[in-house]
Amino acid sequence: MKNNNLEYPSDIIRAGILGVSGYTGREVFAILLKHPNVRITYVAANNTQGLMGQIYPEFLNRTTLNCQKMDLAQVAQKCDVVFLALPHTESMSVAPKLLKAGLKVIDLSADYRLKSPKVYEQWYGHKHTDPKSIAKAVYGMPELYRQKIKKANFVANPGCYPTAAILGLAPLVSTRNDIQAIIIDAKSGVSGAGRKATVDKLYSEINENFKAYKVLSHQHSPEIEQYLSQLAGHVTKISFVAHLLPITRGILNTMYVQLIDGITLNQVHTLYKKFYKTESFVRLHPIGVQPEVKNVANTNFCDIGLAVSPDKKTVVVTSAIDNLVKGAAGQAVQNMNIIYGFNEVEGLL
Amino acid sequence: MKNNNLEYPSDIIRAGILGVSGYTGREVFAILLKHPNVRITYVAANNTQGLMGQIYPEFLNRTTLNCQKMDLAQVAQKCDVVFLALPHTESMSVAPKLLKAGLKVIDLSADYRLKSPKVYEQWYGHKHTDPKSIAKAVYGMPELYRQKIKKANFVANPGCYPTAAILGLAPLVSTRNDIQAIIIDAKSGVSGAGRKATVDKLYSEINENFKAYKVLSHQHSPEIEQYLSQLAGHVTKISFVAHLLPITRGILNTMYVQLIDGITLNQVHTLYKKFYKTESFVRLHPIGVQPEVKNVANTNFCDIGLAVSPDKKTVVVTSAIDNLVKGAAGQAVQNMNIIYGFNEVEGLL
Amino acid sequence: MKNNNLEYPSDIIRAGILGVSGYTGREVFAILLKHPNVRITYVAANNTQGLMGQIYPEFLNRTTLNCQKMDLAQVAQKCDVVFLALPHTESMSVAPKLLKAGLKVIDLSADYRLKSPKVYEQWYGHKHTDPKSIAKAVYGMPELYRQKIKKANFVANPGCYPTAAILGLAPLVSTRNDIQAIIIDAKSGVSGAGRKATVDKLYSEINENFKAYKVLSHQHSPEIEQYLSQLAGHVTKISFVAHLLPITRGILNTMYVQLIDGITLNQVHTLYKKFYKTESFVRLHPIGVQPEVKNVANTNFCDIGLAVSPDKKTVVVTSAIDNLVKGAAGQAVQNMNIIYGFNEVEGLL
Amino acid sequence: MKNNNLEYPSDIIRAGILGVSGYTGREVFAILLKHPNVRITYVAANNTQGLMGQIYPEFLNRTTLNCQKMDLAQVAQKCDVVFLALPHTESMSVAPKLLKAGLKVIDLSADYRLKSPKVYEQWYGHKHTDPKSIAKAVYGMPELYRQKIKKANFVANPGCYPTAAILGLAPLVSTRNDIQAIIIDAKSGVSGAGRKATVDKLYSEINENFKAYKVLSHQHSPEIEQYLSQLAGHVTKISFVAHLLPITRGILNTMYVQLIDGITLNQVHTLYKKFYKTESFVRLHPIGVQPEVKNVANTNFCDIGLAVSPDKKTVVVTSAIDNLVKGAAGQAVQNMNIIYGFNEVEGLL
Repeated sequence: MKNNNLEYPSDIIRAGILGVSGYTGREVFAILLKHPNVRITYVAANNTQGLMGQIYPEFLNRTTLNCQKMDLAQVAQKCDVVFLALPHTESMSVAPKLLKAGLKVIDLSADYRLKSPKVYEQWYGHKHTDPKSIAKAVYGMPELYRQKIKKANFVANPGCYPTAAILGLAPLVSTRNDIQAIIIDAKSGVSGAGRKATVDKLYSEINENFKAYKVLSHQHSPEIEQYLSQLAGHVTKISFVAHLLPITRGILNTMYVQLIDGITLNQVHTLYKKFYKTESFVRLHPIGVQPEVKNVANTNFCDIGLAVSPDKKTVVVTSAIDNLVKGAAGQAVQNMNIIYGFNEVEGLL
Repeated sequence: MKNNNLEYPSDIIRAGILGVSGYTGREVFAILLKHPNVRITYVAANNTQGLMGQIYPEFLNRTTLNCQKMDLAQVAQKCDVVFLALPHTESMSVAPKLLKAGLKVIDLSADYRLKSPKVYEQWYGHKHTDPKSIAKAVYGMPELYRQKIKKANFVANPGCYPTAAILGLAPLVSTRNDIQAIIIDAKSGVSGAGRKATVDKLYSEINENFKAYKVLSHQHSPEIEQYLSQLAGHVTKISFVAHLLPITRGILNTMYVQLIDGITLNQVHTLYKKFYKTESFVRLHPIGVQPEVKNVANTNFCDIGLAVSPDKKTVVVTSAIDNLVKGAAGQAVQNMNIIYGFNEVEGLL
Repeated sequence: MKNNNLEYPSDIIRAGILGVSGYTGREVFAILLKHPNVRITYVAANNTQGLMGQIYPEFLNRTTLNCQKMDLAQVAQKCDVVFLALPHTESMSVAPKLLKAGLKVIDLSADYRLKSPKVYEQWYGHKHTDPKSIAKAVYGMPELYRQKIKKANFVANPGCYPTAAILGLAPLVSTRNDIQAIIIDAKSGVSGAGRKATVDKLYSEINENFKAYKVLSHQHSPEIEQYLSQLAGHVTKISFVAHLLPITRGILNTMYVQLIDGITLNQVHTLYKKFYKTESFVRLHPIGVQPEVKNVANTNFCDIGLAVSPDKKTVVVTSAIDNLVKGAAGQAVQNMNIIYGFNEVEGLL
Repeated sequence: MKNNNLEYPSDIIRAGILGVSGYTGREVFAILLKHPNVRITYVAANNTQGLMGQIYPEFLNRTTLNCQKMDLAQVAQKCDVVFLALPHTESMSVAPKLLKAGLKVIDLSADYRLKSPKVYEQWYGHKHTDPKSIAKAVYGMPELYRQKIKKANFVANPGCYPTAAILGLAPLVSTRNDIQAIIIDAKSGVSGAGRKATVDKLYSEINENFKAYKVLSHQHSPEIEQYLSQLAGHVTKISFVAHLLPITRGILNTMYVQLIDGITLNQVHTLYKKFYKTESFVRLHPIGVQPEVKNVANTNFCDIGLAVSPDKKTVVVTSAIDNLVKGAAGQAVQNMNIIYGFNEVEGLL
């Protein structure tokens, strides 16, 4: 499934990024700039225009691309695949048109992750204006849905917290019938909250600070529950509390899985080892070693650590990712690699 | 219970600090330097000697005190009360002698917090060499043990994580009989790990990083369980996971209390409000507001927030303190204020 | 010069703060809250109203004050002294009215620091609408202008960079006739840029970053030059470059004074020692010791270090302050103490 | 100049790293791991042994290399080129043996940067035990010495501060005869101080802090002066003050060049533009834009900004690099690329 234009070699595809001025869009741009099978042919943003090397001086001398006001006709003409790094609710006004124009669409917003438009409206506070497309979107978590992604034209790229949560819990949730409760104590760096100027994200507010927010009411909860339920084969509930870390990038989820029957540390370690045996981007740590955010920063890895309580009834799973990479842009490119039949790790190692 | 020497007015007591070169000792020093009822008359450290204004230039022009090599005879002669900011295992070789000499002793180490020498040895890896004195030590958490502290000569000052945990859980644990499980997801700034030079505390290792450590095996677990069990009237177990925050000072504990019968948010909020009604240093936040580390940094406050799951079965309690103040030096001075009949908040607001 | 109202004891004055929701206003509030001779009787802000304990939860249980929409008639009625922590250009519309109403006014904005309205307009980009009051304002740097401040009704509180620069240079500039050039390489924490939400102050932009800004064109340059010229007795020019540190509070200026005749390190150290002999808040460091921002954070100190090049022609003066305390709120309170005849260090140690 | 062993294709060379457990050695390792023309065949450290994925869990699943106790016979057998990331004074006991064994040696220590053993001893406090090899070492700054590096067997890789300083000053120093004074106000992240555990590098000491150190006495001064003098054609002196930034990686030098005749901003900008016209890793910023550390972090770029005082007599040059990349490991790999005739940017973009 290569590109169908004549200007580029057949193993090169043309990619566009909408919303390139935000942190997620910038990360997609930075990754694709080094990707051997990709030419970035179109970048746009709502409120920022100009040369990429001016908007982000880190790209000075590395690109001559110009960030445009978004024009869907141009996107359709210039791109084979387009990454939507747009705010929630904006993707759903754009995605159906781009799909109709024959493009592959990888949406990094939350607009197509939840299967029920009603649940979407409840958690995101907006009516879903494109409910028809929801069913077409494949959830872009390669470790669980690789076969579907291969054939997809439309990917709903997972949220950052859900990526760390679902990858950390999948082996247990998909195999155990005795799970009594799941608690997810999640901590994220500030870039996860985006680049819009607000007082609560100012340096002097975040620095030397730490707090819980949206306690038991974070909009990523239903996304996690939806996919855990799918893996479990029955409705699975979680208690999810998000926290804000004084770092720029990185998520660490500490998850407490309470089992009725119990499990030993060796057993659970073996279970995870088998589950992720062939995965390039999930690294199970040896027993006794805990993941650290700095080991996954600027990478597409999800690192996992395990511990079990003396009574064997509580498994503590810790999972770490870079929220902008495996939790957003990196996973999006991983999905693109799968769709186009490139090496899955291309541009990501 | 004022001082019994002639040099100072009767409302002034003479205080000594052993281990003043560490972060906890420095904090006791900084607080006492401003305390209207205290003259610091003796400071000592094991490996650092010299003028306090040289060891810590922040004290330049503010004190002429000289940090000595520790000499217990001098301590006994020069002080009414002494603060032990010594490493674990060192306090127990010093405390009995100072008590015998008639001093009030406030021990900030872990040596006298656990009632069983056997449990101490199991978690701290050292034989307890002064088991006789353990029973004499009053646990210095004023909100729970104020009456005992008033009459105490010897205070075992609580650990930092236990202070945030026990204050956050006491109202529930002491009143509910339907607690099924307690999970404490604890996060601390780096100063809690002390001032000894080790690679894992270097700036470049901690900065932009976050990790869990001593998962389900932190030595503060038995201290928390001992006092929760006392409050509950029966053995109470916890699952405790510590994490290292890239900040200098502050602890935030996120605690999940699972109840069989359930409780509403209003009910649990009312319960906490009553419990801490007369306390100066515990601040229950309004419903919907979460504590933040920066609000308690450099203060003796413990801030508490509450949330309840939709099924009313999980209460999420968040508690925030400054690990060096309410979690160590500030609480120690609060205990001193109680012992000497000073205003309990003196030097702490 | 005590208050003239009947509700409070005669050694208590009533203070108001306008612009209390910004970082500088908050700092004035925090300092005055602990000041034994002050009752805060009025606080206001332009865009934020409500209980101080809600706006800043750190003040929960510590005050019942309500932040109002600004009403000058109320200020005049309720206050003896008022602190203007308003944005530049707003002070000049308020100050003359409050002065006319008989209040003492301490203005923390830049509106009355420059003696020439023309220079003000050139650097701040706004016409000065109250040029008549400029001459009435005393520059509130106690170490240089204490006698004038004693008699002042109106204080122009110095800027943060100028405080560190002028205190660090005054001994040399006021005594040497052979100064050839002065370079001020200034570095400030982010709180100096205020609390208005802008992208360039977001955590993810500042964290792990460092940059120069307004190179040779910072609006504090003319303020520094005005007072150095006054001290020197002739026009004195500087090269001033500001930088943004990834810390919340603190300034360190590294200043290079090039002399024609030269000076030894001992000579310059003696000069500074004498100059600041009786000052409570300027701490000259011993030869070989350099100031550090953390030693002055949350204090009203200005710490100074000295070095001299081997050819004796270049003196390197380093000066450190907390930009919000000695660089703003602390110095403002120090000025208030002087005006009212309180102990100059009251509330500041 | 390719490798001469049979196991690898002829465009692949075998590289060794001595001192891989320090921050510089780790950075060389991370860069070479992705380099298409390099196989890392040997890594060693003095005090740390074991699998690289254990020592640095970030390399888990990415390498099976084992860090050995250093054995020079093995190095000689297994490597074509070897990177010395050893502490100062250790390189000079190793380098001559490896050179004799026919290896290319790239030394990241300071041992061979200074041409005079006497000056070395004066600034580094140790006798130079291999003065004979000094003349053989080529200073590895490609922008100035590319032709020599092409033919070199032995490279003295520049220091971090000198890289930012010399690149920032070379265009002026090599063309102007009217330079009166050069002041270098340098600021570095903490990783520049290495990974040895010391109290002054602890997180709690560096965080929220900033200070000058080794004022006018930093050991990088003679290195900068040596190469500036070479460029100028006469003895050139600097005033150099180093500062410690609370960030992990990055250097920003603010440099004040005082000219007798003066220069306009356009003139100096044109001068720099021409000077670095063909350079891949030096990015001159447009007039009015200042370099920022975050734009060069984790890259091999040196970003440069320019400003000129109104009287045209002071040029302010700001230069930013990542101290571990362009200031150490990246520049070392750039030198290797040049020696072996690889694309100079290979592995570095």
